[in-house]
Amino acid sequence: MAVADLNKAPYALGIDIGGTNTKFGIVDVRGDILESGSISTRNHKEVEGFIDDLYDAVMPLIEKVGGKERIKGIGVGAPNGNYYKGTVEYAPNLSWKGVVPLANMIKEKFGLPAWLTNDANAAAVGEMMYGAARGMRDFIMITLGTGVGSGIVANGQLIYGHDGFAGELGHTIIIPGGRYHPGTGAYGSLEAYASATGIRKTALEMLENNPDTPSELRKIDPELLESYHVFNCAIKGDKIALEVFAFTGKILGLALANFVMFSSPEAIILFGGPTKAGDLLLNPVREHMEANLLPIFKNKIKLVFSLLPESDAAILGASALVWETRQD
Amino acid sequence: MAVADLNKAPYALGIDIGGTNTKFGIVDVRGDILESGSISTRNHKEVEGFIDDLYDAVMPLIEKVGGKERIKGIGVGAPNGNYYKGTVEYAPNLSWKGVVPLANMIKEKFGLPAWLTNDANAAAVGEMMYGAARGMRDFIMITLGTGVGSGIVANGQLIYGHDGFAGELGHTIIIPGGRYHPGTGAYGSLEAYASATGIRKTALEMLENNPDTPSELRKIDPELLESYHVFNCAIKGDKIALEVFAFTGKILGLALANFVMFSSPEAIILFGGPTKAGDLLLNPVREHMEANLLPIFKNKIKLVFSLLPESDAAILGASALVWETRQD
Repeated sequence: MAVADLNKAPYALGIDIGGTNTKFGIVDVRGDILESGSISTRNHKEVEGFIDDLYDAVMPLIEKVGGKERIKGIGVGAPNGNYYKGTVEYAPNLSWKGVVPLANMIKEKFGLPAWLTNDANAAAVGEMMYGAARGMRDFIMITLGTGVGSGIVANGQLIYGHDGFAGELGHTIIIPGGRYHPGTGAYGSLEAYASATGIRKTALEMLENNPDTPSELRKIDPELLESYHVFNCAIKGDKIALEVFAFTGKILGLALANFVMFSSPEAIILFGGPTKAGDLLLNPVREHMEANLLPIFKNKIKLVFSLLPESDAAILGASALVWETRQD
Repeated sequence: MAVADLNKAPYALGIDIGGTNTKFGIVDVRGDILESGSISTRNHKEVEGFIDDLYDAVMPLIEKVGGKERIKGIGVGAPNGNYYKGTVEYAPNLSWKGVVPLANMIKEKFGLPAWLTNDANAAAVGEMMYGAARGMRDFIMITLGTGVGSGIVANGQLIYGHDGFAGELGHTIIIPGGRYHPGTGAYGSLEAYASATGIRKTALEMLENNPDTPSELRKIDPELLESYHVFNCAIKGDKIALEVFAFTGKILGLALANFVMFSSPEAIILFGGPTKAGDLLLNPVREHMEANLLPIFKNKIKLVFSLLPESDAAILGASALVWETRQD
């Protein structure tokens, strides 16, 4: 990107579409968010009305930073987003059904170039542009949340695959015949164990299978038990809670070893709620990743947490698409 | 590559270094082998003597096609070859120990540019240049032999990873705690099941575990039983032999599903001895790959055999490095 272009249009608009809310922000090339806001996604049953309201909410912010001429483009992160086609396809958590040509709709409404990808790919680009992967050409981003997402960068480029859907590492089968995933029908996928939902499930199973082991977790209504409760108990030395992290780390570590033997990244970057557990999670993950690696890969993969604040990461990632994207 | 360059230097020298023999050939851009030959690898305990003898064997062929000026460069496929460094590192099947700067040694001896990569990556480049992956930008090559090798192409480029060692899919763990791999110490890696060695092992296990099931395979000395015997019996309807392919296909299919969810390739190309089994292998592989894929990937990945003749594939792959390689 030429410096002259950057002077003329120094900002990117990042839009992160979640099932509940859509957040947006105007971001400069260093990752500073100048202006930001949000609208409800869920209240818009029709995508057309969503685009109209998004425009109305965003334009005042664009005017504040000097008008549309100052915006180089729009980056959108969305569940089931397809980079090649700029579409959101059959997203289970959105009420817009089928294949929605969202990038084109936004491009036409705003009169600015727009790129779209899934949220985990956007997170990876954000990390490469502003975060822990700055300067790296080969890394894997793993987002741990309600699900497990991933973005893979090799040779300095996001891997999209032939159809734009590459990087569904949460759905790789790590324990064949293992835990059932009600969303996909698969048995033993990484997401069934390493997501916040999976960690909750592991805790409930361990409480049930070890009725004689005392645990603070038993004081919490099982319906309401969440992964952060497990963390809160684990740091106090609760045996079952510690066991939950050891088990989660074992499976995630094994999965990461397989990913390393695929693309030999310089680093694996973990992002999302469960990373708040810090070394409680990182230590068993690292131990089991290393144990399952071929010798040529041992002791050289950086396993780190995201450097982006969780509240801003999605907007930053989406905006980074504008700077990173191939101009083709 | 400019046409003028191609007219001036229309040929590539491909060198495939195996544990026993080293084969070489002069190849044009269409994949026709004009001249070829081989020398022993095993008889050369010192790499310096090997390079001298290789030069003496190759130069007469180079003279035949018009001299060194007609050769654009040298591509080398070697076990444990590192593309970035041009080295062969700790190759268990070669007598040259440690890190051998083979590409540089060849470059200096021949006075021609030289590139080196591992044999499976070379096979992938060969397939992209001359074979089943022509025109594809995203595919995975799986070589089934004594071991299981792989080469991964994404965005039209081989994935080498940050250190040059990417694409060790044979060592990914598919069945945690599964079959022991004596070469690596891992339990349940793909190579332990899907290599020719693994297929032999599966046959021996099934014969032992089903003593009452008649099988033609029992007529073969267990010490001498090889994967092609299993194939020969399977096509005659031998129950145990068929079961061996069903089992192998189940594990390979599961592994391929995981690889698809990583890089979403247009095709997976299988190469090597066990592919002679044709649909006996391909059908269960496809069935189990599809069964383990997320819906967005189903029924769109081409699963095909290599189009390169096995005897020439290694030379073609090595030579293709010269045409394909990034000029950096």
